[in-house]
Amino acid sequence: MYLFEENDIRKHVKLDQTAIQLIEGGFTQLAAGNVTLPPIMRIDVPEHNGEVDVKSAYIKGLDSFALKISSGFFNNPSLGLPSLSGMMMLFQSKTGLPEAVLLDNGYLTDVRTAAAGAVAANHLVKQKLQYAGVIGTGLQARLQMHALYAVRPFKAITVFGRSEEAVRVYASEMEKALGVTVRIADSPEQVVKESEAVVTTTPSKQPLIKANWIHPGLHITAMGSDAEHKQELEAQVFTKADVIVCDVKSQCFRLGELHHAKDQGILSEETESILELGELTSMKKTGRQNESQVTVCDLTGTGVQDTVIARFAYEQLITRGRGLVLGKDTANTK
Amino acid sequence: MYLFEENDIRKHVKLDQTAIQLIEGGFTQLAAGNVTLPPIMRIDVPEHNGEVDVKSAYIKGLDSFALKISSGFFNNPSLGLPSLSGMMMLFQSKTGLPEAVLLDNGYLTDVRTAAAGAVAANHLVKQKLQYAGVIGTGLQARLQMHALYAVRPFKAITVFGRSEEAVRVYASEMEKALGVTVRIADSPEQVVKESEAVVTTTPSKQPLIKANWIHPGLHITAMGSDAEHKQELEAQVFTKADVIVCDVKSQCFRLGELHHAKDQGILSEETESILELGELTSMKKTGRQNESQVTVCDLTGTGVQDTVIARFAYEQLITRGRGLVLGKDTANTK
Repeated sequence: MYLFEENDIRKHVKLDQTAIQLIEGGFTQLAAGNVTLPPIMRIDVPEHNGEVDVKSAYIKGLDSFALKISSGFFNNPSLGLPSLSGMMMLFQSKTGLPEAVLLDNGYLTDVRTAAAGAVAANHLVKQKLQYAGVIGTGLQARLQMHALYAVRPFKAITVFGRSEEAVRVYASEMEKALGVTVRIADSPEQVVKESEAVVTTTPSKQPLIKANWIHPGLHITAMGSDAEHKQELEAQVFTKADVIVCDVKSQCFRLGELHHAKDQGILSEETESILELGELTSMKKTGRQNESQVTVCDLTGTGVQDTVIARFAYEQLITRGRGLVLGKDTANTK
Repeated sequence: MYLFEENDIRKHVKLDQTAIQLIEGGFTQLAAGNVTLPPIMRIDVPEHNGEVDVKSAYIKGLDSFALKISSGFFNNPSLGLPSLSGMMMLFQSKTGLPEAVLLDNGYLTDVRTAAAGAVAANHLVKQKLQYAGVIGTGLQARLQMHALYAVRPFKAITVFGRSEEAVRVYASEMEKALGVTVRIADSPEQVVKESEAVVTTTPSKQPLIKANWIHPGLHITAMGSDAEHKQELEAQVFTKADVIVCDVKSQCFRLGELHHAKDQGILSEETESILELGELTSMKKTGRQNESQVTVCDLTGTGVQDTVIARFAYEQLITRGRGLVLGKDTANTK
């Protein structure tokens, strides 16, 4: 069994075309019915404003599968620690024995989450993108713009964030990183109105984007909501959408934006026009069909992404001879 | 963050009175409503006749909680590997950050499972036990008799197993280990008839114990069934029981013996007379009240036991300066 630490993982796994294509492949497997995807396990620690989510997915035919543990403890900043953390494990498909522990501290989740944004953009954002928008100024606000740029290079970002300081830092960093203009917006409304593709990356509990700001050609990816109480889009936004896509229907109707649209009677799990990302990546269905359609994608994050990225990290690290060998005293095929 | 390997864990954590008392305390916390116990997460890998279970429990007020991953891959023996494996992790309750990885290869699960048997026996087996019985000849058949002996020293075991060779090895080992007589039975019926306390420790899919073998004073602990398709007791056994106990009602009615009694209309989740082990350990309810009652306990295994035993192992190992320090490059409070 191998153990990999964060530094090594960061060095050898990047948010690049390879990672994006692998995540795309994971969604295709999901749509093909080749994935066992158990419901998310959640442990709440209300005393400390914390929660732990466990995700997993077994993809038929692959020799390993991942289990991912991610935590959000929202008092951590007051202790000088990041709110989010996590680790992944790989198990051998044939024997169930642990193959690797990846102490990535949430890094691989960051990468696979952003990569899903790129996959969505690839099928849903208009071909010639000029103006990108983002709501939020955290790590995913950065990575999602990198991911979008990888599949639809644009010339400007409009950003909105609650903290003026954070927005300034974001703008300065992203101008350097991508070589694009970054405009600071006064409101989410300005972001939507100035952009052709918007990504929302916040843990908001109140809708940030209103239906009457939607304009022809717009694409929105909402990736912040992954729990019942979170919401970034007004439910009516879906009434303006020509194409509605999500990562996993059952999960988005429980934890994502679709959940709120269902509560308000706007959508239901039986609404056939709602597509899963894997139906697009596998070419079973088409995403955007012309430059004026409005498209919306609801991402909650799936275990398939975790299995794909953990396997990729393992391969990258093993071929470079990285990792600590453990458990030689335990029953292990290695 | 610390990493502990199997050898060290085995050396410093034993199935002894301390472990049994700690597990008893865990059940008491559960009965007091101090435990967040999410449903078990299960990943099936049917191609390889395998399954992975993930359990967890947060006990209010404690500074860490465990997540346990256990696997059963039933083709492993043909590869020269044990079917069962597992590992545990401890997370800090305050921050959600990983505190320890325990590569115990299922050992701590073995200990906490047997300890729960001792806790049940302590409240349900007659005070002066002479004749113990066991069905199965595997590791739990050994550990359960050690656990029973720790709380109710007896003078003989009657054992039944399908493999003559395994039964002989079992008998010889246990005679030496406990200094008791071990009698080899021709049938489960003989075990039940000759014993005052029987533990069933098999993955059987067919009931092994019949209702009409039950006699006054008998106690049965059924600890083998932990999945819908497993069953060790004929459902009618419950009609003969004066006291019915289980570890967690909701779980036993899904995965344990109670599940089959429910399917046959013998018991329901509303049957008030069914007790949880924690009601006995917390003295809210009484177990056995006289020497002639028939008592039955259905154990499926709970995350509370995992959190308790993982924390105990951690303390034992840390105070002895064991363990590998990891993740110094990651955000960690240590």
